[in-house]
Amino acid sequence: MSEKTTIYDIAKELNISAATVSRALNNNPKISESTIKLVMDTAAKMNYKQNRLALALRSGKSGNIGVIVPRINTNFFGSVIRGIEEELHPNKYNVIICQTHEDESREIENINTLLDAQVDGIMISITNESKKNEKIIHRVLEKNVPLIFFDRKKNIDGVSSITIDDFKAGYIATKHLIDQGCKKIAHLCGDQSLEIYENRFKGYQKALLDNGITFDETYVIQSKSNIEDGISVTNKLLQLKTPPDAIFSASDFAALGAIQELKAQGIQIPKDFCVVGFGNEPFTKFMELSISTIDQSPLEMGKMTAKVFLEQMNNTEDFKMEKKIVLNPILHIRKSSSRQNL
Amino acid sequence: MSEKTTIYDIAKELNISAATVSRALNNNPKISESTIKLVMDTAAKMNYKQNRLALALRSGKSGNIGVIVPRINTNFFGSVIRGIEEELHPNKYNVIICQTHEDESREIENINTLLDAQVDGIMISITNESKKNEKIIHRVLEKNVPLIFFDRKKNIDGVSSITIDDFKAGYIATKHLIDQGCKKIAHLCGDQSLEIYENRFKGYQKALLDNGITFDETYVIQSKSNIEDGISVTNKLLQLKTPPDAIFSASDFAALGAIQELKAQGIQIPKDFCVVGFGNEPFTKFMELSISTIDQSPLEMGKMTAKVFLEQMNNTEDFKMEKKIVLNPILHIRKSSSRQNL
Repeated sequence: MSEKTTIYDIAKELNISAATVSRALNNNPKISESTIKLVMDTAAKMNYKQNRLALALRSGKSGNIGVIVPRINTNFFGSVIRGIEEELHPNKYNVIICQTHEDESREIENINTLLDAQVDGIMISITNESKKNEKIIHRVLEKNVPLIFFDRKKNIDGVSSITIDDFKAGYIATKHLIDQGCKKIAHLCGDQSLEIYENRFKGYQKALLDNGITFDETYVIQSKSNIEDGISVTNKLLQLKTPPDAIFSASDFAALGAIQELKAQGIQIPKDFCVVGFGNEPFTKFMELSISTIDQSPLEMGKMTAKVFLEQMNNTEDFKMEKKIVLNPILHIRKSSSRQNL
Repeated sequence: MSEKTTIYDIAKELNISAATVSRALNNNPKISESTIKLVMDTAAKMNYKQNRLALALRSGKSGNIGVIVPRINTNFFGSVIRGIEEELHPNKYNVIICQTHEDESREIENINTLLDAQVDGIMISITNESKKNEKIIHRVLEKNVPLIFFDRKKNIDGVSSITIDDFKAGYIATKHLIDQGCKKIAHLCGDQSLEIYENRFKGYQKALLDNGITFDETYVIQSKSNIEDGISVTNKLLQLKTPPDAIFSASDFAALGAIQELKAQGIQIPKDFCVVGFGNEPFTKFMELSISTIDQSPLEMGKMTAKVFLEQMNNTEDFKMEKKIVLNPILHIRKSSSRQNL
């Protein structure tokens, strides 16, 4: 059992009331300087340690920041979190992380957990499924807890967000495939109810239009962000009467599945078929057939998210601040779509 | 601003004292059944929500569990955490995650953060560096907060742990290389002050001994768990007068670096050189030259960790429980070390 020193022990030692000890420890101006010093010294001598959380309940500051992501084990979200930590840690904030596994009810639970843990702010990348939960976001805002969206956001007045230009990303990826001579470009898209996937799709469409290629909706097929789905949807695409000659995938994992299926069917990449993924997951670079992909600058995104949070925390003026930051996507051209050297 | 209902609002509404409301909400037996019902009904009608954390300060239960890992963005730790969540979630526990980035002071901060957030338990895989911090572990134990080690542990009386048999893992990996005809087997080892790496090394040594191969310490070289280090230490090994003909790496990432360097030097794998990694990271399977590796059953490890925690929580007997569970490693033989079909 713990033998923790309490304020009652200090009170007994000094023969004063516990209330006085408590006030002294919290620098209450009603208490004399000499008493504050006496209490502080005695507390230190008796190895008293204030419960930071009890303190937080009083002061409204815990020094903890909550980060909510769909899943932690992708390079993208891992790197965003690292960026957040690198920026917040020197500012004495600790980061606690929750994952939703793309489950909206889990997202609501996570937010409640973080609110109950008295975090000083929440940074969130919403789930595929979080269509209905504006209510929980408003609950956070009503509590005056700063909330910032990164990558996947909702459009809510007064809420800052850090995203990348997904439209542009879709556009430059598709334009690159056109430049390689591809004419029947398929798109493995994500759930269109999520803005990021909608914008990647729109960028793809616009690039086709701008380059005189007729949009064919049979070439657009939804895929989850995993290898298995990439394999199965690519298999379906290859069974079309006029199969595509390229794929722009909204996910690196699905792109990897696509490449595996193409290889299994004996199709040569990039000679007969080009593939571009999305996310710049580490494996895209170190495959023997390296995969062209879009880099989303996740470290930068994390740092920006933390910076906007700090700005918001330090805003003592009587106005609401809202920042929308849109980072530039970068296309990395690798072997899977590079016909120059053939 | 929030217009949250407080116990004072309820007290005013019912014309009773706030203390009575508080007691009623906490089912204090001093309060009559009828008053409890009246308060509960009124609270529900007025949309009153108890602060779970304030509750936690009183009841000692927050429903939150803290998990501390060196880093979140590897498949291994990501999968352990998923296993923990899958087991705890149906039991109404929320999981909050912190990462140490192999930094001991960060580890101490994380533990303090979780303690202050009143978690009901801590599951931790210690950092490479945490040699000195027994004190902080004891602080957790003194507070009677259940603490469980997974994968990377310290040996502390009364603390349960879930690990895999790293000695056996090192042994079977090395034995497999010997069976492939390799005779000069190098070992990329981790920091030997961490038990897991020490045991992998000892297993390697024992397999050599049991098979009549003289141990040569120039073949043992420390490498961080990343591609760059794998490349540079392999480069050093290949410059030896008698370079090795195989590598058993204590890390998949270093093994991948080794393979890249071997290829860069025109060495054929597995014909002239075999490589076995450790961890069964997803990329080891989907490389064109798939990498042999040790699977650590991370999902299973996470589930077991959570199960031991639940057992400990439900232990109402007056004795301390300590469980040491050691999971079996599984060798996956893939192209990087498979000479059968050559």
